[in-house]
Amino acid sequence: MKVLIVYAHQEERSFNRALLQRALDELAAGGHEVQVSDLYAMGFDPVASEADFFERRFPDRLQYDREQKHNHQHQSLRADIAGELDKLIWCDTLILQFPLWWFSVPAIMKGWIDRVFINGPVYGGGKRYDTGGMRGRRAMVATSTAAYDTMCAPDGLVGALDVILWPIQNGMLAYAGFQVLPPFVAWSVNFVDEATRQGYLDGYAERIRGLDATRPLFFHPLNDFGTDWRLKPDIAAATVGQRRA
Amino acid sequence: MKVLIVYAHQEERSFNRALLQRALDELAAGGHEVQVSDLYAMGFDPVASEADFFERRFPDRLQYDREQKHNHQHQSLRADIAGELDKLIWCDTLILQFPLWWFSVPAIMKGWIDRVFINGPVYGGGKRYDTGGMRGRRAMVATSTAAYDTMCAPDGLVGALDVILWPIQNGMLAYAGFQVLPPFVAWSVNFVDEATRQGYLDGYAERIRGLDATRPLFFHPLNDFGTDWRLKPDIAAATVGQRRA
Repeated sequence: MKVLIVYAHQEERSFNRALLQRALDELAAGGHEVQVSDLYAMGFDPVASEADFFERRFPDRLQYDREQKHNHQHQSLRADIAGELDKLIWCDTLILQFPLWWFSVPAIMKGWIDRVFINGPVYGGGKRYDTGGMRGRRAMVATSTAAYDTMCAPDGLVGALDVILWPIQNGMLAYAGFQVLPPFVAWSVNFVDEATRQGYLDGYAERIRGLDATRPLFFHPLNDFGTDWRLKPDIAAATVGQRRA
Repeated sequence: MKVLIVYAHQEERSFNRALLQRALDELAAGGHEVQVSDLYAMGFDPVASEADFFERRFPDRLQYDREQKHNHQHQSLRADIAGELDKLIWCDTLILQFPLWWFSVPAIMKGWIDRVFINGPVYGGGKRYDTGGMRGRRAMVATSTAAYDTMCAPDGLVGALDVILWPIQNGMLAYAGFQVLPPFVAWSVNFVDEATRQGYLDGYAERIRGLDATRPLFFHPLNDFGTDWRLKPDIAAATVGQRRA
C-alpha cells in the first residue's frame, strides 16, 4: 500500500501522536510506503484565498473552485497545495487522523480539504462519488474524542456517530470518490485509564494491519439517483434503512 | 436585538457579500445593534495553538481546552480571541454566514469556533445544551451552496440538510446553549438566474426581519438523557421521529 496520513495535533506528547506512531510502526513492519502530512509541524495554511493562485482566469472576481481548476491545468497552484495534491494522487489509502473538535475536523485539517481537494483532479465536471477523481482509493477517519461511546449512539447525547461524521465521510471522502472504511474512534481519551488507552493503541494497530481487507461503508453510486438527484424509486424501496452503512 | 454576524467569504463582489449587506440593511432599518466579524477581512487566524495562551497551567503538554479555561480565568487569552469572545458574550443573536464548502464551514470559520468557543464561558463543567454558556441566546446558519435543494433531501444525492448541518447546528450551536433557528439556504447560487438570486436576497431579508419571532429547532434538554447519556426510555418513546426537528 501507499498510505498518506494527514495528521492534525499540536502536541508532540499527545495520545494522538502515540496513535500516529503506532500506525507508522505497523505500516513499516508491513513493508508499506508511507507519507505523513503533519499539518501543525508543517505550519500548513488552512485559509483558501486568492493567494493560492499564480494565474487568474477571472481576475475581477474570485471564484475559488474555478480558479482551482484553471490553476491546476496551468500548473500555477501555490507550492504547498501542489505538494499536497501530489501526495494525494500518489496514495492508494488516505487516513485523516485528528482529535474531534466540535464534532468535526480541526480548522487546519478543514483547510487541507478546502485547498487540496481541487476542482479538476479530485471532483467536478460530473466526477463525484463512484466517478470521483479519487475512485479506486480508500480512506479512513481515525479520531479521538472526549465523548463516551454511548453519547454517540442514535439516542445518545450528541447523536449518532455516522451522522456526526456524515459531512466528512460522505461529503468529503465518498464525494471525492474514495471508498470509505469504517472509522476508528478512541473514546473518552481524556478520562480513561492507561490500560484502556493501551487497548485503543492495540485496536488501532489491528485496524491498520487490516486496512486492505476491511469492507468499506456503503454509499450509493451516482447511477442510483434520477435526474432530480433523488434515489430512483426502485432503489429507494430496496435500500430503506441502509442509507447510512 | 444585539446581533453578531460572523462572516466568511474572500470576495467583495460575491453573492455572500450581497446577502451580508442585505442583512445589515434590514437590521439597521429595524434599529438593532450589529457587530460583524468579517473573518477574511480581519485576517483571522483559524489555527488553535499554544500561541493562544499567555499563561500555561500545564506547561509540559498542551491540553488546549484546559488552557482555554485557565487563560480565560486569568485574562491571558490572545487578544484576537478575547475580542471575539467579548462580541459573543455581547450578542443575543449569532448568525454564522458562509458558503458551504465540503458540506461544512470554511476552515477560517471552523477556527473561529475552535478558538472562540472557550471552555469556561461557553461550555464545560457540565454546561452544555440547555445549560450551555450561550443559553438564552439564538443562533442561525445562513449559507449558500452549489447544490440543488433536491440533492439535500433525505433521499437526495448528498443527504438530508439537517444531517449535513448536524455537527454545526447540534454539535456547535445547540451544544453551546444557543436556541438554533432553522437555517437559511441559498441553493445552487452558481447556476440560477438573476431573478432567483434576487428572490434569495428578499427571502433572507424576510428571515432577518422575523428573527425574534422564529420558532427554534428542537434539541433535547440535558434532562431527557439518563446517566448513560442516552435518551430516557419514556422520552425516547414519546419523541420517535422528532429527533431532528
